[in-house]
Amino acid sequence: MFEPEGRRVEVEAGCSIFKAALRGGVGIRTECGGKGVCGKCKVVVPNRKAVGKITKAETSYLTPNEIDSGYRLACQASLIEDSTVFIPEEGRIRARKIQMAGFERPVMLEPLVKKFYVTLAKPTLSDPKPDYERLIQALKERHGFGSLNIRHGVLKKLPSILRSADWHVTVTVWDSREIIAVEEGDTSSKILGLAIDIGTSKIVGCLVDLTTGKTLSLGFIENPQITYGEDIISRITTSASDEEKLKLLQQLLADGVNKVLEYVGIQANVAPQNVYEVTVVGNTVMHHFFLGINPKYVAVSPFTPAIRRPVNYRAEELGIKACPEGNVHVFPVIAGFVGADAVADVLASGICESRELSLLLDIGTNTEVFLGNSEDALCCSCASGPAFEGGHIKHGMKAVSGAVESVSIILEEDCKVSYRTVDNAAPIGLCGSAMIDVVAEMFKHGIVDERGSFNLNIKTPRLRKSDCGPEFVIVWKRHSGTGRDIVVTQKDIREIQLAKAAIFSGCWILMKRKNAKLKDVDQLLIAGSFGGFINPENARLIGLVPDVPNEKIRFVGNTALSGAKMALISAEARKKAEMLSRNIRYLELANDPDFPKEFADAAFIPHKYMERFPYVKSLLNGKKTKN
Amino acid sequence: MFEPEGRRVEVEAGCSIFKAALRGGVGIRTECGGKGVCGKCKVVVPNRKAVGKITKAETSYLTPNEIDSGYRLACQASLIEDSTVFIPEEGRIRARKIQMAGFERPVMLEPLVKKFYVTLAKPTLSDPKPDYERLIQALKERHGFGSLNIRHGVLKKLPSILRSADWHVTVTVWDSREIIAVEEGDTSSKILGLAIDIGTSKIVGCLVDLTTGKTLSLGFIENPQITYGEDIISRITTSASDEEKLKLLQQLLADGVNKVLEYVGIQANVAPQNVYEVTVVGNTVMHHFFLGINPKYVAVSPFTPAIRRPVNYRAEELGIKACPEGNVHVFPVIAGFVGADAVADVLASGICESRELSLLLDIGTNTEVFLGNSEDALCCSCASGPAFEGGHIKHGMKAVSGAVESVSIILEEDCKVSYRTVDNAAPIGLCGSAMIDVVAEMFKHGIVDERGSFNLNIKTPRLRKSDCGPEFVIVWKRHSGTGRDIVVTQKDIREIQLAKAAIFSGCWILMKRKNAKLKDVDQLLIAGSFGGFINPENARLIGLVPDVPNEKIRFVGNTALSGAKMALISAEARKKAEMLSRNIRYLELANDPDFPKEFADAAFIPHKYMERFPYVKSLLNGKKTKN
Repeated sequence: MFEPEGRRVEVEAGCSIFKAALRGGVGIRTECGGKGVCGKCKVVVPNRKAVGKITKAETSYLTPNEIDSGYRLACQASLIEDSTVFIPEEGRIRARKIQMAGFERPVMLEPLVKKFYVTLAKPTLSDPKPDYERLIQALKERHGFGSLNIRHGVLKKLPSILRSADWHVTVTVWDSREIIAVEEGDTSSKILGLAIDIGTSKIVGCLVDLTTGKTLSLGFIENPQITYGEDIISRITTSASDEEKLKLLQQLLADGVNKVLEYVGIQANVAPQNVYEVTVVGNTVMHHFFLGINPKYVAVSPFTPAIRRPVNYRAEELGIKACPEGNVHVFPVIAGFVGADAVADVLASGICESRELSLLLDIGTNTEVFLGNSEDALCCSCASGPAFEGGHIKHGMKAVSGAVESVSIILEEDCKVSYRTVDNAAPIGLCGSAMIDVVAEMFKHGIVDERGSFNLNIKTPRLRKSDCGPEFVIVWKRHSGTGRDIVVTQKDIREIQLAKAAIFSGCWILMKRKNAKLKDVDQLLIAGSFGGFINPENARLIGLVPDVPNEKIRFVGNTALSGAKMALISAEARKKAEMLSRNIRYLELANDPDFPKEFADAAFIPHKYMERFPYVKSLLNGKKTKN
Repeated sequence: MFEPEGRRVEVEAGCSIFKAALRGGVGIRTECGGKGVCGKCKVVVPNRKAVGKITKAETSYLTPNEIDSGYRLACQASLIEDSTVFIPEEGRIRARKIQMAGFERPVMLEPLVKKFYVTLAKPTLSDPKPDYERLIQALKERHGFGSLNIRHGVLKKLPSILRSADWHVTVTVWDSREIIAVEEGDTSSKILGLAIDIGTSKIVGCLVDLTTGKTLSLGFIENPQITYGEDIISRITTSASDEEKLKLLQQLLADGVNKVLEYVGIQANVAPQNVYEVTVVGNTVMHHFFLGINPKYVAVSPFTPAIRRPVNYRAEELGIKACPEGNVHVFPVIAGFVGADAVADVLASGICESRELSLLLDIGTNTEVFLGNSEDALCCSCASGPAFEGGHIKHGMKAVSGAVESVSIILEEDCKVSYRTVDNAAPIGLCGSAMIDVVAEMFKHGIVDERGSFNLNIKTPRLRKSDCGPEFVIVWKRHSGTGRDIVVTQKDIREIQLAKAAIFSGCWILMKRKNAKLKDVDQLLIAGSFGGFINPENARLIGLVPDVPNEKIRFVGNTALSGAKMALISAEARKKAEMLSRNIRYLELANDPDFPKEFADAAFIPHKYMERFPYVKSLLNGKKTKN
């Protein structure tokens, strides 16, 4: 199993990891082609028994530290048994374009997990106080604790640990009330936490040193549930009436989190059992799957989640292989389509702590939109569909290697199209940010009109008719990596119109309900890994987002993970997240009387009512004047 | 598997339960010898599939109610597969003499488990509040609750239960803070609890209706750990350095509790999952085994338990098959040899709530002694050994059918010995109460002197020499059930002397430490199933207990179970038990400077210093005068 790609490859024993990767189509960096003379094909194999001995080539290209951490050269290490192989960022090619980290606000360091080193007096016949009471007495005398609960798993081992440690132990306390670990000797400097963002397509994690609040390592894998469908609905359907499948899907998420934990642990040379708390965010369906709750009612009207408030359960109870009695804090959600990830976005962006009015968007298959400030906030979820992730688009694809990610069209000089691809690889399809550019550029040049229809009067070989209607060629086959022309069809344009109409109408209805005019919006934040790659001007031009000046637009990255991290290191931030989930008012668009008309109006490019897009209007007017 | 005997019998399929019992030496009552015409051989088979169809004989001898509850006639029901068979009291012969219930003090009914029936408004698009918050709102509106935690197992099922119940549900809340069950419809009248006393040799349970505080049924089985040794030390040794064995011994206790739960449930027609709380008492070693804690440090100096205070863990976590998220409350202990059962004894007897000074004894292999009143209490544990349970005694046995349980000797008329046996069966051995009588009677008649040595000058054929020294015949072989004489040896007398010396010296040292004279002791309570069968006069005569007048002596029965029951139905009683465990001062006899001399002095019959036994002295003087 290759991670973070999540690809399983079957090979005979003795096959090198490099060959296995080739066979499975998993890209590993190399300069020498697997001859052991470039040292570039570094991989990490956690299970050392699964691979052959370290070779001479490896000792010369890998540092002793790397070898200790499980690093190998893929071309040298032969597979003996089933194993997971991590390909670190440096050894990866065709890497998915993903922004793991996001904007982070500084928070006060006050984690819920704390460690206390204590020395206990040995029991004697004249002082035969029981072990737990002896421990509590020491904690009381040295650290002022009163009573503390002790988890069953810790109590079971307490007598033997106290004695093998000769009565010098470190006690891990969660939330000043639960003893979650007792370790031999002084381990008080080793307190780690893990922040996890479970997305529909990937699981991203961040290992944090809770004594400093610093991120030690980051890692991600494909969401292992993907074998049950790329889209969330097929996973919900799979588990809707099958208890076993539900358990399996829960287990897959736990496994995924465990893999990320293992990977970030290796990077930072930390054992998983020294991770004492995990904070988890994710959309409401992932939130439910992670907790083993059937998400079927989230998917049908009135889209009711099982629980809004945050929950804390033992790591072991959820199948997480951190410290077994450690705590897993699952973020609160707001609604069926405004999940824990969105709460984390709001927490990290700080929009509800500022007096400025902010509009925050996390664009995906469902786009969560927040509008508010420290006084009041509203949110909604827009069914933007998979178009921005390449779904339902003829040559659409995710932002992986070879995806066209930005496009510009120069109509003069026989319609030149210039583009850039991820990793500068030969183009094989169009990702979401390219589609926004394509629609914006085509609209600017009059190739499509405000209704999104191709203007067949434009004379260029790129605009042509096919069996399925008109289409526009972005990349000629002689330049493409697929050997075929890469095109945008009329239907593709429609998909983008629907997607952007969903998002814009959501934004606009929130503004209406808050009596906010365009000029009242002080900033427009775009969160999520997708956001960072879009051209804000083009997004405004096609009417994807309200027409605020560019300088008010900020890309904040994967703030979901940042929010999870904030809550990991700060009890205060955790409380704030819960307050946000309670106080932010959720607006159900499906129930809003204005929605149908707003949606229809927003399907125009940029909008039926141009007065809502003053900047775009002036741009187009300027253009017209120029022409 | 026959319960409560705990005997496993292997038979071919189709064999009747009656024949299986015969083969295994398990006594089932019968008048017709298994011909199906007396209806006496009633048994309970929980797994109906394991036995053949109900016969005509059964429909005529069993009520429809009995048949519904799983009752069968042993001679009619043929075994098809592996099954547990319970032999109810009425169908049992050779029943172990056991007192399941004990003295009960009335307590205010205020269990920690409460049920609330609520009706929820259905979610709609304009009110899409999540399920948990909807439930909490209803609980708040109707019952004034604030926030409540919800156990993971309950949350997982919440969405489907709310909907299949059409939003009418009963919520079970533990300790006003945890939701431990949500059930369809109104089940608010069904709240059961189980009180359990785990003894070294048996597990006794009592099913309680928590709406009334009434006991619904009682049951017991042999402690299934007995396969790892009758005595506690061999079980501790087994598990001391073997994690797997420790787990197994924990599992055996959980299985045992589950069997009692199943049995008392069948008697009262209650499903185990409707049992929402279990209170558990037991000696410190059983307490540790039940919690899966290695008890090895309890067995070696300084005899330190892992924890004193009470603990609450989820039933599922401990392998208890009650309501899975229900609570198991494990009583506090006082010391390695003063366990949770002793705390329950004190709680039930109420000695620490009265201004009268009480001495409380729970006699067993270890005898716990308490001395105190509402102001202050002291306790200690005496290593009385197994003699009173038949151990280390040549013809000793437990108080089961055929055991001689009381003895009197008339020296005149050629030394007649009269006795009574359990169930009036042919005598096969001597149980503890008989041994007390024997020593007392022999001492009274001068057959043994104050040092416990046989007076060989007494001329009677009953007193004779054997290869192992002198012995006294209690039952001639012509009357015995074994075909051999039943005798008491010099060594047997020594064993009883050691046992009673241990108990008396414990009592006396406590009295010394509390500056209490004999006349200050207002009552002497004897708890435990053994206590009820001893002759108090003889106990005083041999110096087993301090020489207080008979009218101050009370037998209170199995108060350990009573205490567990009190804590089950009363939060206040539970708090009291914790206070008792904290406040009662434990005195380690092994560490007491006076102990060696006190012990040696107490080995005399009744004691080296006769002034400590004024009543016995006057009795003996009167006798001497008479002679």
